[in-house]
Amino acid sequence: MNESSHHVVVVGAGFGGLEFTRALDGAPVRITMIDKRNHHLFQPLLYQVATTALATSEVAWPIRHLLRKRKDVTTLLATVSGVDRVGKRVLFDDGGAVAYDTLLLATGARHAYFGHDEWEPFAPGLKTLEDATTIRRRILLAFEEAERETDPAKRQALLTLAIVGGGPTGVELAGTIVELAHDMLRGEFRNIDTRQTRVVLIEAGDRILPNFAQELSDYASKALERLGVTVELGRPVTRCDAEGVVFGDTHLPARTILWAAGVAASPAAEWLGVAADRAGRVLVEPDLTVPGSPEIFVIGDAAHVLRPDGRMVPGVAPAAKQQGRHVAATIKARLAGDTTPRPFRYKHDGDLATIGKRAAAIDFGWIKLTGRLAWWLWGLAHIYFLIGFRNRLAVSLSWLWIYATGQRSARLITQGDDDRN
Amino acid sequence: MNESSHHVVVVGAGFGGLEFTRALDGAPVRITMIDKRNHHLFQPLLYQVATTALATSEVAWPIRHLLRKRKDVTTLLATVSGVDRVGKRVLFDDGGAVAYDTLLLATGARHAYFGHDEWEPFAPGLKTLEDATTIRRRILLAFEEAERETDPAKRQALLTLAIVGGGPTGVELAGTIVELAHDMLRGEFRNIDTRQTRVVLIEAGDRILPNFAQELSDYASKALERLGVTVELGRPVTRCDAEGVVFGDTHLPARTILWAAGVAASPAAEWLGVAADRAGRVLVEPDLTVPGSPEIFVIGDAAHVLRPDGRMVPGVAPAAKQQGRHVAATIKARLAGDTTPRPFRYKHDGDLATIGKRAAAIDFGWIKLTGRLAWWLWGLAHIYFLIGFRNRLAVSLSWLWIYATGQRSARLITQGDDDRN
Repeated sequence: MNESSHHVVVVGAGFGGLEFTRALDGAPVRITMIDKRNHHLFQPLLYQVATTALATSEVAWPIRHLLRKRKDVTTLLATVSGVDRVGKRVLFDDGGAVAYDTLLLATGARHAYFGHDEWEPFAPGLKTLEDATTIRRRILLAFEEAERETDPAKRQALLTLAIVGGGPTGVELAGTIVELAHDMLRGEFRNIDTRQTRVVLIEAGDRILPNFAQELSDYASKALERLGVTVELGRPVTRCDAEGVVFGDTHLPARTILWAAGVAASPAAEWLGVAADRAGRVLVEPDLTVPGSPEIFVIGDAAHVLRPDGRMVPGVAPAAKQQGRHVAATIKARLAGDTTPRPFRYKHDGDLATIGKRAAAIDFGWIKLTGRLAWWLWGLAHIYFLIGFRNRLAVSLSWLWIYATGQRSARLITQGDDDRN
Repeated sequence: MNESSHHVVVVGAGFGGLEFTRALDGAPVRITMIDKRNHHLFQPLLYQVATTALATSEVAWPIRHLLRKRKDVTTLLATVSGVDRVGKRVLFDDGGAVAYDTLLLATGARHAYFGHDEWEPFAPGLKTLEDATTIRRRILLAFEEAERETDPAKRQALLTLAIVGGGPTGVELAGTIVELAHDMLRGEFRNIDTRQTRVVLIEAGDRILPNFAQELSDYASKALERLGVTVELGRPVTRCDAEGVVFGDTHLPARTILWAAGVAASPAAEWLGVAADRAGRVLVEPDLTVPGSPEIFVIGDAAHVLRPDGRMVPGVAPAAKQQGRHVAATIKARLAGDTTPRPFRYKHDGDLATIGKRAAAIDFGWIKLTGRLAWWLWGLAHIYFLIGFRNRLAVSLSWLWIYATGQRSARLITQGDDDRN
């Protein structure tokens, strides 16, 4: 690849950006991959870091290591602050810039508080490795403080964990936290009984897992209740603070609140100065290009893309990967002289969520599965999709270890004295 | 154990505190274990976390999990702020307190800058998990920034790492960092050649590994130079700042400086209001008690203990463990009515240090070993002493993986947005 060849810049090494880069292998282009982190994060397993089952390095992998054999790809650690659409340059927050011929923005989403950013300090969300270690620390510290607390009301608030949002992340957090409290930590404290821990899952809608079939939502509710989770439906949260959480006319004293209720796209639309939906997703053309800038594509959680039936393409890894492959094919066609717009068509493979370490709900449309078989299928699918043989092996061993012994490997409370980790 | 039985309070769950608690198993006492961390840290392997070979959860283990079967032990997460010797109470920074009949302080040491605390932001030391992830982040970020740097002098400063202190930690850091740069990261960057990384080990004395036999020091110097490390002897460091490090009349531009040169004891002497040596270690009686307070013992890095020949007992794990067992035996004897003072006698088992992943230097006194055989012995010894079967297995797998493939598992740069990890 010489310097004069077509230069493709990718921002974001998530599922979409990486899949795009892979699909461009062999194309007559040079690629620059830009991310503000040095690692790709396997977000579907992030809740397991937050709940002490996996170590951070089991769900994250250095981007430049993943791309080391691709001599056509340069990986840069940099934070994007804007896009100069006229000059065709991506701008960095440190004053640097890089020019592009084609640009792909695959920058993902953060959690959002529906206009209540003041809730964030009390109700952390789960999108990054740091989010996961923050949540892990808060959960573990709550038990440590409860062990030393003598006031019964304060102790009960320390032993109450509220999870806001009944999607897959909320369901998975609730199921693993209740198991952590009732099983794994049992017998390790002398002044508290961790089996008295209350885990409350709060969903504003009328059922959890709203994207799944009704029967799977019902199954998941029952399975969670059987594990010991209290499921609260139909009342949105109206306050989060140091005392707890308010939903409807209920005030639940809880020292640990976790936020799994909403996402907002990264600021790609702001960088571009183009229209976005309410969650900040760029309103792209059917071929995933930005209106007026056919050389710029936006995919994944940063893009607002509709299905033929008018529903939105969901913010899941398979959708981002399909879009990445689609854009790669478009670029290859263009370089071969075919500039016909190629509309993206989403193919929905299914939805899945685990409930603790013994059950899961899987909705493939044509088949619905629950219970232990679904859990094993979920585990196999996730191990299969994990990047890198080492990680697959490490995660498999960690899970088998937990499954067999009930012990968890990553129960660390860490806190820096001079710096962030 | 009823509430009226003899209450032993242990502060610090390092090697000394844990060994003491183990040795007291079955004694007619109840024990409270206090630590400001929730985990025991296997410090001899901490440099491997700092250099991306091991994950944090592979070298640390929750204290209350280690002690879960000991129904006579209560584990508390708390930060000690003082000792009330008259009232026989340990005081916490949050206003809490706990009464003791016998107290063991096994609170370890921090790194020290010989009166130059202003160097700390530029030259982090390695004592805690956070220290290790801080160092890991700085090392990895230096390469990331070098990949984007266009000024040749700045780039070379980014690719220069200085390690201050030629003891085992400094030697081990230098050896693994040079391997990381020259082997593991090779081929992953497009604008820099990581083989041009300079690793400089700076020792004020006339040889590295000063506690080892001269021939092993010479061997280690040669082995490090062969790996590509520059060893600088005989000139103490007189400045550390953002530009680099000064020793003698040499100013070495280096963006990464690591501190492995000195330790200071935890503030146990301040808590007690008793005499300490220059490094803050409590000047204990020969039986490890505090002068004037026979019910208080200090062991490990927090204590200044002399050998029969007048040399100090070294600050290594075996010394702390021997002292822990000694104090446990003393307490058992006292409870049986024997209050004769029992002087502690240190038995030196040997010294060992690794040099990269292929060599080590071992000094058992009666036998000295170097090279690959020494490395394997070192590895077996450390795996054997690791706490918990799971950790042994995980560390063995991580090492075999690195040994076989040259890949490392924990190359993560993490940095919190709202909180420390």
